[in-house]
Amino acid sequence: MITRYADKRISRIFSDSAKVKLWQKMELTVLQAMVDLSMLDQEIYSKIETLWRSHSISIKWWKKRDQEIHHDLNAFLDERYRYLPLELHCYVHKNITSFDTEEAPFALSLKKAVAIVDDYCEELKATLIRMALQYRYAIMNGRTHGQEAEMQSFGARVLTWFKDLETAKLALDNAGDNLKYSKLSGAIGKYGSIDPALEKQALLILGLQPYYGSTQIIPRIIYVPLAQALSNMVSVIDKIATDIRLSARSGRPLMQEPFKKKQKGSSAMPHKKNPILLENLEGMAKMATGFASMITSTIKTWEERTIEQSSVERVAWPDLFHVTVRSLSILNKVLSGLRVYPDNMLEEIIQSRGVYASSEAKEFLKEHLTAHGLGNEDVYRIVQLAAFNVFKPTPERMEIRERISSSFSESLELLDKMRDLPQAKIVSLADIIPAARLEVNDDLDIAQTDVDKYNLALKKLFKSEEIRVQWNKLFTPAFLLRNEAVLYREILGVE
Amino acid sequence: MITRYADKRISRIFSDSAKVKLWQKMELTVLQAMVDLSMLDQEIYSKIETLWRSHSISIKWWKKRDQEIHHDLNAFLDERYRYLPLELHCYVHKNITSFDTEEAPFALSLKKAVAIVDDYCEELKATLIRMALQYRYAIMNGRTHGQEAEMQSFGARVLTWFKDLETAKLALDNAGDNLKYSKLSGAIGKYGSIDPALEKQALLILGLQPYYGSTQIIPRIIYVPLAQALSNMVSVIDKIATDIRLSARSGRPLMQEPFKKKQKGSSAMPHKKNPILLENLEGMAKMATGFASMITSTIKTWEERTIEQSSVERVAWPDLFHVTVRSLSILNKVLSGLRVYPDNMLEEIIQSRGVYASSEAKEFLKEHLTAHGLGNEDVYRIVQLAAFNVFKPTPERMEIRERISSSFSESLELLDKMRDLPQAKIVSLADIIPAARLEVNDDLDIAQTDVDKYNLALKKLFKSEEIRVQWNKLFTPAFLLRNEAVLYREILGVE
Amino acid sequence: MITRYADKRISRIFSDSAKVKLWQKMELTVLQAMVDLSMLDQEIYSKIETLWRSHSISIKWWKKRDQEIHHDLNAFLDERYRYLPLELHCYVHKNITSFDTEEAPFALSLKKAVAIVDDYCEELKATLIRMALQYRYAIMNGRTHGQEAEMQSFGARVLTWFKDLETAKLALDNAGDNLKYSKLSGAIGKYGSIDPALEKQALLILGLQPYYGSTQIIPRIIYVPLAQALSNMVSVIDKIATDIRLSARSGRPLMQEPFKKKQKGSSAMPHKKNPILLENLEGMAKMATGFASMITSTIKTWEERTIEQSSVERVAWPDLFHVTVRSLSILNKVLSGLRVYPDNMLEEIIQSRGVYASSEAKEFLKEHLTAHGLGNEDVYRIVQLAAFNVFKPTPERMEIRERISSSFSESLELLDKMRDLPQAKIVSLADIIPAARLEVNDDLDIAQTDVDKYNLALKKLFKSEEIRVQWNKLFTPAFLLRNEAVLYREILGVE
Amino acid sequence: MITRYADKRISRIFSDSAKVKLWQKMELTVLQAMVDLSMLDQEIYSKIETLWRSHSISIKWWKKRDQEIHHDLNAFLDERYRYLPLELHCYVHKNITSFDTEEAPFALSLKKAVAIVDDYCEELKATLIRMALQYRYAIMNGRTHGQEAEMQSFGARVLTWFKDLETAKLALDNAGDNLKYSKLSGAIGKYGSIDPALEKQALLILGLQPYYGSTQIIPRIIYVPLAQALSNMVSVIDKIATDIRLSARSGRPLMQEPFKKKQKGSSAMPHKKNPILLENLEGMAKMATGFASMITSTIKTWEERTIEQSSVERVAWPDLFHVTVRSLSILNKVLSGLRVYPDNMLEEIIQSRGVYASSEAKEFLKEHLTAHGLGNEDVYRIVQLAAFNVFKPTPERMEIRERISSSFSESLELLDKMRDLPQAKIVSLADIIPAARLEVNDDLDIAQTDVDKYNLALKKLFKSEEIRVQWNKLFTPAFLLRNEAVLYREILGVE
Repeated sequence: MITRYADKRISRIFSDSAKVKLWQKMELTVLQAMVDLSMLDQEIYSKIETLWRSHSISIKWWKKRDQEIHHDLNAFLDERYRYLPLELHCYVHKNITSFDTEEAPFALSLKKAVAIVDDYCEELKATLIRMALQYRYAIMNGRTHGQEAEMQSFGARVLTWFKDLETAKLALDNAGDNLKYSKLSGAIGKYGSIDPALEKQALLILGLQPYYGSTQIIPRIIYVPLAQALSNMVSVIDKIATDIRLSARSGRPLMQEPFKKKQKGSSAMPHKKNPILLENLEGMAKMATGFASMITSTIKTWEERTIEQSSVERVAWPDLFHVTVRSLSILNKVLSGLRVYPDNMLEEIIQSRGVYASSEAKEFLKEHLTAHGLGNEDVYRIVQLAAFNVFKPTPERMEIRERISSSFSESLELLDKMRDLPQAKIVSLADIIPAARLEVNDDLDIAQTDVDKYNLALKKLFKSEEIRVQWNKLFTPAFLLRNEAVLYREILGVE
Repeated sequence: MITRYADKRISRIFSDSAKVKLWQKMELTVLQAMVDLSMLDQEIYSKIETLWRSHSISIKWWKKRDQEIHHDLNAFLDERYRYLPLELHCYVHKNITSFDTEEAPFALSLKKAVAIVDDYCEELKATLIRMALQYRYAIMNGRTHGQEAEMQSFGARVLTWFKDLETAKLALDNAGDNLKYSKLSGAIGKYGSIDPALEKQALLILGLQPYYGSTQIIPRIIYVPLAQALSNMVSVIDKIATDIRLSARSGRPLMQEPFKKKQKGSSAMPHKKNPILLENLEGMAKMATGFASMITSTIKTWEERTIEQSSVERVAWPDLFHVTVRSLSILNKVLSGLRVYPDNMLEEIIQSRGVYASSEAKEFLKEHLTAHGLGNEDVYRIVQLAAFNVFKPTPERMEIRERISSSFSESLELLDKMRDLPQAKIVSLADIIPAARLEVNDDLDIAQTDVDKYNLALKKLFKSEEIRVQWNKLFTPAFLLRNEAVLYREILGVE
Repeated sequence: MITRYADKRISRIFSDSAKVKLWQKMELTVLQAMVDLSMLDQEIYSKIETLWRSHSISIKWWKKRDQEIHHDLNAFLDERYRYLPLELHCYVHKNITSFDTEEAPFALSLKKAVAIVDDYCEELKATLIRMALQYRYAIMNGRTHGQEAEMQSFGARVLTWFKDLETAKLALDNAGDNLKYSKLSGAIGKYGSIDPALEKQALLILGLQPYYGSTQIIPRIIYVPLAQALSNMVSVIDKIATDIRLSARSGRPLMQEPFKKKQKGSSAMPHKKNPILLENLEGMAKMATGFASMITSTIKTWEERTIEQSSVERVAWPDLFHVTVRSLSILNKVLSGLRVYPDNMLEEIIQSRGVYASSEAKEFLKEHLTAHGLGNEDVYRIVQLAAFNVFKPTPERMEIRERISSSFSESLELLDKMRDLPQAKIVSLADIIPAARLEVNDDLDIAQTDVDKYNLALKKLFKSEEIRVQWNKLFTPAFLLRNEAVLYREILGVE
Repeated sequence: MITRYADKRISRIFSDSAKVKLWQKMELTVLQAMVDLSMLDQEIYSKIETLWRSHSISIKWWKKRDQEIHHDLNAFLDERYRYLPLELHCYVHKNITSFDTEEAPFALSLKKAVAIVDDYCEELKATLIRMALQYRYAIMNGRTHGQEAEMQSFGARVLTWFKDLETAKLALDNAGDNLKYSKLSGAIGKYGSIDPALEKQALLILGLQPYYGSTQIIPRIIYVPLAQALSNMVSVIDKIATDIRLSARSGRPLMQEPFKKKQKGSSAMPHKKNPILLENLEGMAKMATGFASMITSTIKTWEERTIEQSSVERVAWPDLFHVTVRSLSILNKVLSGLRVYPDNMLEEIIQSRGVYASSEAKEFLKEHLTAHGLGNEDVYRIVQLAAFNVFKPTPERMEIRERISSSFSESLELLDKMRDLPQAKIVSLADIIPAARLEVNDDLDIAQTDVDKYNLALKKLFKSEEIRVQWNKLFTPAFLLRNEAVLYREILGVE
């Protein structure tokens, strides 16, 4: 991964020096296991260990040797043999094949990288919990299909983000469980010259257990779900990032990515505050998908192994971890410094003219209008019509809407006209329905006679003071969001 | 493809009956070519043709036979042999292998399907041209990073959509050119028992030419770019659809997908007008990507052929065409009935407070403030600061912004407070800079002394009436969009 | 999915009629739950249920209505309302949104489809177990990198297939666990007008539980791992299929896909017995990957929902299940009728000239040659050289190898010469090393002096009768495969 | 890309220092174009150019600045401003946006990288031509479905590889043509403050032309086909590599990847000569697919731009080029040193017992047996039966085949028995059919009476000496491969 997007700890895990250190650890572990099983004298083990520990591995020598013999594990062994007297050579890498040495270290490396992902994930979850609690009563309109839907608290939206992440995390944990397995079962995995007890003991020392049924390598079906889980997690992060970007669209932004004091949004346009970190997360998700699909494609291999998986894994695993860790940390950074504008949320609610309670209004009317001879379909159409009515532009505005400009000077003229238009009064569903002021709308197929019938029924219904009181309550946050408490209880365990 | 998303003409092209008809055509074409090359008596050809043409192919018989012998082309031949006297059998399918019969029909089917895509594409392009001309002077703010950027006409944005589509179409044409090739070169493509002249002649009759270097089949590298080009085209459509969805977000929608009079947006919320067709196009793009990737994966095959590509092609090609055709037609339908709200575009411009000309303002000041001792960096910061200043909320609003509600009743109270807030006057970059009214802003790292210096320089500069006139011109559509004419000329050839 | 590859039971699960039946079940379940919670009279529930059960759903009417209102769930409700008196309308679909009705049925459909996959998977596993036991002592050479490696039993290779499948199945079970969740939480998932207790009760009736933190729909991160697990399983199947195809390559096939008596391998070449079912499985895997990637791409959506996921799911889920089920059943069919040729396996072993024990030979020599002054590197080179020696062609053959034919008549001549070549004696590692008959080989960088040194050491070593006895034992199945019993014990629990 | 797989020239093209040099070149080009259009004094240009050329760009300073302002292009400009007196600042980057500076350099970098791909591709093509000519008369069996099919020359197979590559290359050229376009059209691509003439002139200087219809950036639909073409090319390479791997399977390898004298095939098994380079190419293809899919996913973006494409392009383009270049060069290396074993090809032909001419045999019999009352179906069955007969094992071998070993000692016994089996005479289709020696076969559904009928007809037919002569000719390379000359002529233009 290029430096710009690389995480240092991930780089370290997958570095050459970390790899060869783990290989040495593995070779020593095998010897240790032999000692444990009385297959080797402790003394020999100690000699080898001491000699190796006192001579650090020369990455340069190793790489040069690899160029010659085209086999990196053998090259590593040659490097290590340099420090052993001839009579000790025969104990090292005895009866085992390259991947017997490499597999357990590989699993351990993945484990370490997953642990780093876990850490970042926990931090992000903590941030999301803080936000959910902080904005528990900050009301905003939910949006489905990009359109304003029912009212919710911003905190409750954050809870859905939290749950998405938690679900992704749970799948990651499940997939990561496979990392407990490894193999030390020889050239084709049938223990041709290795005692299965040795595999068991060596892996035990490393906190692992045998995967019975390996070929020369662990079948990649073991690791693929982990790659997919990481990539899915980044997609969840991209989903959250996209929600914020949608809320941050200028005009009336509900929230914005933090912006540093010296930051420049654009070289051309000094006014810009662009959500570049959040957009970057979409790029990360595209990459994560690509890396995971590379790894997924390694499930199929020929017979007891071929080596096409190796190059893919050298590249795609570290890069997938870099991308995941970066995504978690960037989103955490953005959320931790997120600028939230509750005033704009409120203004959006006001401008939405009561439609945030259209479902409740509909159910309320269903309940009370059947007595007045109106069925479900009628009620649906009443609320729909009212919603169209409240957004109907004034005639002056309608005139501008319907003018198609035929020159830029006309555009300028329209712009000025628009600027001078008197501010139209905001009418809400909450008002127009009890007032029985429905009007025919060209965009809906509802006849005047029906509209009259609806108004008549509404007039009758809303004569009742009690009905009016109940009606008005429908539009209050306390009523609309009364059940969000359940989400806080069930998800966060708070009351 | 499920009926919901299938196109009838595409279904017909890839139907069983169309396929076997083409196979028969191919078998006859080979015989015709043999006649042309004096390898067969015309009379024999005529007998076979007459017998076949007078007995239509029984799909049912064919399928039953296929179940028995597991070879659909052989089963087809058996069906056809039923109508030929024994002595004519030896002329049919002589020396050739199944894919000699199947390849040319396959290419012809793809050609037909591409032709349908072409038709829809032309229709969509025509719609886009109409829109570009209609909205040539309908001004709106461009958006980069979701943030309002410079001003443009809606027509000019449509031109970028048009060009995207045209570029995708050009790539499709390029890829489609490969459909002129086919093969009739026997079991491993080396003309073991076929005269290359026969291949040439038979393909010529069908308007095709030999692809020298086939194996048993045409190498799939020939067709893959076509699948990719189709999928890329659907991605372009999704891009256009997404732009409209972004403009259609409720609050102040700039345009909306057409909505039928009887349509219901939501079963719960009667006020909804959801862009479901446009969102469906995103689904189509995801599918197109999937189908194209299936087809792409067929490039690699073993030696002179294996048959894994066959099942993929039976499913993915028709489905990819269905998805492409649907995408083109749905977008055309949406655009043809698109509701456009120029008044909202104007309002958005007004609310953006002159930032749409921030780049021009910056360049203007660069040009004139150097004389007053200010460099590029200073000018950038002046315009940036002004942009922050014009959007600064009133203290009353700021108070609401900074209150974090701790109960729903407090939320309701804030909502009412917000509703009662007096409408703040809209201040523009156009005004604040000549007035030299820059103020320190907490979000920017610019010191009071600098701000004073900036105001001083501005005051001096804007003393000049001429400067003020020039300055005001910067904010007019006629100035800002003066170069769009070039786009109309270069892209559409109109003045 | 096209009929050719569709599974009838899967088709039924995802059919229109099954879908609307489940929707009705869901609507009734909600009413039932209301009764349970004393929110509705049992009598009303019974009336509705009776009326609905006595009038089956008209798919035709429903589809026509959907064409009109562009909302399939609302169209379904309209169809059902036809049979209810007006006064019962208000109880149906009360307070809930379309996806409150659709989500639980969707989860139930996926569950059913997964159950079918489970069945096929169990059958396939049973077949694999049978094979593993049957071929426990059928010896063959393992292959890594396509090259003959150590000896194994065919049964042990089958065990690795079994474990691959079992691992894929375990991941599927993990992913399927998410299907226990669903939602009934209203238009944006915040229970705007729904009692959370109702959700809990309704889902309980269906054997499900609430997913707290939904938006309008269950977040797709819940379902994506299932799609990936299915696709991964098909990749495992493709891996097994590929292993068989590799073993079935003509010349000396070790096994072959069953071939029906009337089957035709090729229209051109009557001798062909092509592994078309196995190759078809590769096509299935490519499709499964594509369908899973479509579904994976639905994780990201806007805010409280957009609907692009719907079209993808209508197509990709059924097709992914079809492909998975077909893959499992086709592989089971192939394995159940697999033709296995133990004689060819034996011949292959013989022809491999003892290299299947090269690792054991190397370790044996390491152990015994250190005493004779040879190190690891020397021993490695001895065995490598011996392996090169045993495969060295005779001079007559070498002559043919090095002739590059310059005409087809020369090719024919070479072909005849080759046919007349006397059969060369097969020399094995087992013989050449104790005989100390190593020779310099041009392809290896080992000097004559070293070869002499090696031969000398070998001569000394193999003077010992005991050494020779031990050496010969290295090449026996009983020794080489002695540890396979562990695999049978650990994987199948058999001794 | 990790060093192991990186190409140095590709690394250089996409290095930081190359990038900023191109940015400087672009800024100067814009100034130069202004001079050309009399918008700037030559003198000012010269001053700036001289100052910049005499102060090399500090990567370190630039990176540090980028950390501060989070905008790499602005940071670069700041670095460059350091060397200009204040009064020259206003001329630099005037009116243009970051991507006006970045796009043309990006296109130029891609062009350079494509040129490197072209070079490697030409080398590989030259190698393939050499091989096609060298092995023009080296006969081998073609394989379809992994089964031996008709005879061909190895040269002719190489020709199919050559054509695959050439086809991929042609698509790459087509896609690369788009690199002639770039943009310099301001912040949203509408020339807000840029003269379109300046764009044209500046791009002209660089050998480019304007893409009319850009937004802030060139739409990525322009570049995506290039990425796909690169990835497709790597898939073609993987196809060729796989063919070689299949031919290199041990037992009777037809060819082998070159093996260095000091190379070690396996740490455990010294006899191994693994095709690790070829297998590595499969890994490269998997990666190429992944990188291309990342780039493909950038087509869709919001409105006049968002920046998610940037991170993807920073990573995926260089890596895709690395992978492509490596694939081309590795395959070229393997092919240049490929070890080919014509003797094994001949032996394989002999062992295939005449089936390589089964299609010709069938057509020959069709032609001559109709007179004896046998139809197409009969003839097909005759050849099929003959093919089954020639491969029928001896009874002794059949006994071994049908023994299922129940212990390892029994396996050893069978192995010894097999070793002692007398070599069975090879019978060919060429012999058995004229001899009319067809026998009933259990695997085919052909009755004894039919077999008798067939033998009778064959006996009659082959009485004729002339028929026997013609028949024997069918099995000769000169006859079977007579049409390959056409391929050489059409593809390579050689006779």
